[in-house]
Amino acid sequence: MSTITAAYYRGNKTFAVEEANAPPPAAGQVQLRIAYCGICGTDMHVYHGNMDARVGLNRIVGHELSAVVEDLGEGVTGFAKGQKVVVRPLDHCGDCPACNAGHQHICHKLKFLGLDTDGAMQELWNVPAHTLHVLPDDMRLDHAALIEPVAVACHDVRMASVQPGEDVVVIGGGPIGVLVAMVARDAGGKVVISEVNENRLAIAEKLGFDTVNPARVDLKAAITDRTGGKGADVVFEVSGTQPGVDAMTAVAATRGRICMVAIHATKPQVDMFQFFWRELKLIGARVYEPQDYDKAIELVAKGAIDADTVITDVSPLGQIQQAFESLDASPTALKSLIKVGELA
Amino acid sequence: MSTITAAYYRGNKTFAVEEANAPPPAAGQVQLRIAYCGICGTDMHVYHGNMDARVGLNRIVGHELSAVVEDLGEGVTGFAKGQKVVVRPLDHCGDCPACNAGHQHICHKLKFLGLDTDGAMQELWNVPAHTLHVLPDDMRLDHAALIEPVAVACHDVRMASVQPGEDVVVIGGGPIGVLVAMVARDAGGKVVISEVNENRLAIAEKLGFDTVNPARVDLKAAITDRTGGKGADVVFEVSGTQPGVDAMTAVAATRGRICMVAIHATKPQVDMFQFFWRELKLIGARVYEPQDYDKAIELVAKGAIDADTVITDVSPLGQIQQAFESLDASPTALKSLIKVGELA
Ligand SMILES: [Zn+2]
Ligand SMILES: [Zn+2]
Ligand SMILES: [Zn+2]
Ligand SMILES: [Zn+2]
Repeated sequence: MSTITAAYYRGNKTFAVEEANAPPPAAGQVQLRIAYCGICGTDMHVYHGNMDARVGLNRIVGHELSAVVEDLGEGVTGFAKGQKVVVRPLDHCGDCPACNAGHQHICHKLKFLGLDTDGAMQELWNVPAHTLHVLPDDMRLDHAALIEPVAVACHDVRMASVQPGEDVVVIGGGPIGVLVAMVARDAGGKVVISEVNENRLAIAEKLGFDTVNPARVDLKAAITDRTGGKGADVVFEVSGTQPGVDAMTAVAATRGRICMVAIHATKPQVDMFQFFWRELKLIGARVYEPQDYDKAIELVAKGAIDADTVITDVSPLGQIQQAFESLDASPTALKSLIKVGELA
Repeated sequence: MSTITAAYYRGNKTFAVEEANAPPPAAGQVQLRIAYCGICGTDMHVYHGNMDARVGLNRIVGHELSAVVEDLGEGVTGFAKGQKVVVRPLDHCGDCPACNAGHQHICHKLKFLGLDTDGAMQELWNVPAHTLHVLPDDMRLDHAALIEPVAVACHDVRMASVQPGEDVVVIGGGPIGVLVAMVARDAGGKVVISEVNENRLAIAEKLGFDTVNPARVDLKAAITDRTGGKGADVVFEVSGTQPGVDAMTAVAATRGRICMVAIHATKPQVDMFQFFWRELKLIGARVYEPQDYDKAIELVAKGAIDADTVITDVSPLGQIQQAFESLDASPTALKSLIKVGELA
């Protein structure tokens, strides 16, 4: 057993950074030495106490990691010590209707690593070998910590099948919104980001996107105008708000595809008539499949994701408490990373 | 000019059956001698005065017709006098974003014949030649009056791409619901109809369908049970109600497709979380394209539509007023036809 440092969520917006014993990898597992781990919106929900029933009060969170292979458990082949890797943090049951239909990523009994199990906010972490994706040797490990959220965006864009030249509207310019926008742009979409927060609008513009602030401008009129009366071929609803849901049907073209990225905790009112009248499609998209990770690695490697703009700050593991507090309070932060170990 | 009988909607739940002059077909038109014309739910909306602003108070309604070619206007080729035909009652603009994208049936300026123009509740009717579909010589003209609503159902089933062996739930067992169910069954779907009206349930059962009355039985539990925990691969929301919208997400399988057939005049609350969580798809479907008419003709010709059960009564044109009144009051009527001319 090695002694490591780990950060435990202990309830009530509190993390405790403590020494722990790291067990060796079990059969089928790979032990990772964690480099960086991003703070996800979901982790922020944990911090706020909204997920205590699911995660408990002694959980190591973290799933947006980059790492290096430290050790291989019995029977693991195909990986080598020292390889740079990321984790697709999904563990499926293998025997439910979704798994049987080949949709393991939405398994009825899906375990999400870092929520339903301990995660990456610790120096050494053992994960099932099937969750690993190997990175190019020359990829920066801070940039690689974006691959998990970029894979979410790749899944969204793939499910919506954005085609070159299509008009795309992203409703909501937070961390996932801007990543969806960058992936849709790489797919050839002509992207507009709709966002009410002026700080986020400034970041979206810095990233090279056209923007609309629907609190100031009539969004539907702006999109109608921009598209010669057609409307948006593809809309991503990332805001999770009733105005976002109203906008998604308003700006969509005839036969437009609307991708539901946001988590709506309450049931919004939806303009079903427009779905009928203009034959709209609504496409739900959750997490990712292996090919979305492959695509995300490719996009980060080729620089299609402006990682240096997206990553707004990096803190050491010992300051995880302050990192959550300041991300929670910040109007300008996009993605905060925790530097978990000393791996460049 | 020939003198004909025609039925005019004059507002306030009133039809006037009068003599009229029938003009010869203009260039590009075909003159039809109408055999039968079904009463659509939309015609019932006209009767109730809900569409006065659109149709005016001197409109000949009717679009679910069967007919025989009476005469050809200048320049019309490909049709012969005496041929049995039906009309796809859509006239598109040819130059809007929907038309340009090849979706003429949802043209931004679509004219629906029999609502935006005069329709088939008259003995002779001139229509654009491009709206005609020729019938097999031996098809019964009363059965052929079902082809328009069957084509709606064919479009819905095609848009939802029902596959052999898939579990299908149709929410709402009215005229369109049972036609969707019959077309989905022909496509190989294992169909259950959910309906609260006992008379409609009896008809659905007579048509050979398994049924659930969600007022008596937990629909979600029934579908879960029936599908081994999987849920419905395809759901058709035909009810136009909030409970129907609640049910559509509740019964759908992971990655299930929900086809929005109903017209929701108000915005229902929709469980968007389920779209995200189980990657559901919502697919809007409106009217039909030419191949849906081809399919509908094939299905009526081969007897896949139980026309004698669906057609619950036939009245002469002179009794159109009574026909609308009794259809409006009847708990058991499914499809009422008007026998417009003597063409049996
Ligand atoms: Zn995340
Ligand atoms: Zn499973
Ligand atoms: Zn109709
Ligand atoms: Zn058009």
